[in-house]
Amino acid sequence: MAEFLARGAFRMETPVKIKGFAAVAGEKEGQGPLGLCFDRVVEDSHFGMDTWEQAESRFQLEAVGLALDKAGLTIDDIGVICAGDLINQCIGSAYSMRELAVPFLGLYGACSTMAEGLLIASVMADCGIAEHTAAVKSSHFSTAERQFRFPLSYGGQRTPTAQWTCTASGAVILSREDGTVGVAGGCIGRIADLSVSDINNMGSAMAPAAADTIQRYLAATGTSPADYDFIVTGDLGLVGSPLLVDILLKQGIDIQLSSAQGLRGYDI
Amino acid sequence: MAEFLARGAFRMETPVKIKGFAAVAGEKEGQGPLGLCFDRVVEDSHFGMDTWEQAESRFQLEAVGLALDKAGLTIDDIGVICAGDLINQCIGSAYSMRELAVPFLGLYGACSTMAEGLLIASVMADCGIAEHTAAVKSSHFSTAERQFRFPLSYGGQRTPTAQWTCTASGAVILSREDGTVGVAGGCIGRIADLSVSDINNMGSAMAPAAADTIQRYLAATGTSPADYDFIVTGDLGLVGSPLLVDILLKQGIDIQLSSAQGLRGYDI
Repeated sequence: MAEFLARGAFRMETPVKIKGFAAVAGEKEGQGPLGLCFDRVVEDSHFGMDTWEQAESRFQLEAVGLALDKAGLTIDDIGVICAGDLINQCIGSAYSMRELAVPFLGLYGACSTMAEGLLIASVMADCGIAEHTAAVKSSHFSTAERQFRFPLSYGGQRTPTAQWTCTASGAVILSREDGTVGVAGGCIGRIADLSVSDINNMGSAMAPAAADTIQRYLAATGTSPADYDFIVTGDLGLVGSPLLVDILLKQGIDIQLSSAQGLRGYDI
Repeated sequence: MAEFLARGAFRMETPVKIKGFAAVAGEKEGQGPLGLCFDRVVEDSHFGMDTWEQAESRFQLEAVGLALDKAGLTIDDIGVICAGDLINQCIGSAYSMRELAVPFLGLYGACSTMAEGLLIASVMADCGIAEHTAAVKSSHFSTAERQFRFPLSYGGQRTPTAQWTCTASGAVILSREDGTVGVAGGCIGRIADLSVSDINNMGSAMAPAAADTIQRYLAATGTSPADYDFIVTGDLGLVGSPLLVDILLKQGIDIQLSSAQGLRGYDI
């Protein structure tokens, strides 16, 4: 059971444990500051497949397989996978979940899908729907560029604020069994739209929503940034991350008081 | 809390109650056999907006507003809305949830989104995330044709198996408070793909997955079709519904023994 804290915010009576996790990333991601954290770096952006979309599915399957191995489980132990991606109709997830033949809840949270998946999968485990659940997310630079901006073959010039969508997939196995790290609570986000409509400045478009969720979670839990080792967001990038800090500073919240600033600017 | 029955299937210890619900539909749907069931029939397919996509958002907002009225609640009473639609990036839902500024979990389950939303929203309420949650879904004939088949202005001829995507939105308010009708359990579906790739024969493409979920749920609960007043699916249509009956008959399950057959063939 969860304890209601405020609208959309809750604390788990007993944290749901992370029993296994894996991240499989592309070549560029492997060269970045987090490169050594990935379970596998795949240099071929097609991952041996005919299309980037098929490759994205394979990234998911690889991440799920590695996470299961690390958890000492098989796919048959997983009661439900909450998965999503950025492609139309979430076909990256649909094709990988078709392979796995697992009970599947499809999510569309864009850049928030991993957090959304962790939240729903941990609530599903907590509620007793299954002993083990999973959250899975993928994106692929080449499928995302084709989907949201321009086909790569068009050769469009990138703007200074353009970000590089991650070629990667992450999978997390959640469990009510004992473990060390867990999901202790959550805060479900709201849409905050300050009318940034530049598809090459997604960090600025997303920062207000990140600020809203962090502010609401801190208020609901009665905590401050100094209570946390890390405050980590995804996707805000070099433009959006400082903006997030600024928005929260104007509300009297200095998230630089957590250890997060060392990681700001990296899309993790 | 939920009782685990089998992989993906569960029974609520206490059913989560439906405190309010509403359906707002388009002109064609209003003329159909369920026309009198809708709370509102909107004859203008643009619903007073400039685009069909904006109209689809307005259908959602109208459905949510009516469901809240019937539940005697306001949007501030809702802890989370689980919402989705068929448009790329689920913009129908994103734009309506932006208006409502409510904690929002975006779903992509295509035709299963309403069931997926009911399942997640009821688990969220059951787990204590919020006293009241909501599930919302929309589709629009004209946005779906443009998205999945051809722009309407192309004037393509429809095939005999083509279905008519519903122009409508439904909203359900779920609550742990007392009520009569409730969500007593669920079974999370798996992808069942028998390689039907005709975009004008979606009923046949989807029937195997419907059969799989119904079979798994009956087995998990130890029940038979005769135990149910209705077995209702969405979207299978005049081609897919008899196919669903046939697939299950081959497994020794006769869903015509429920009262459902009177409704088969209507996309509800």
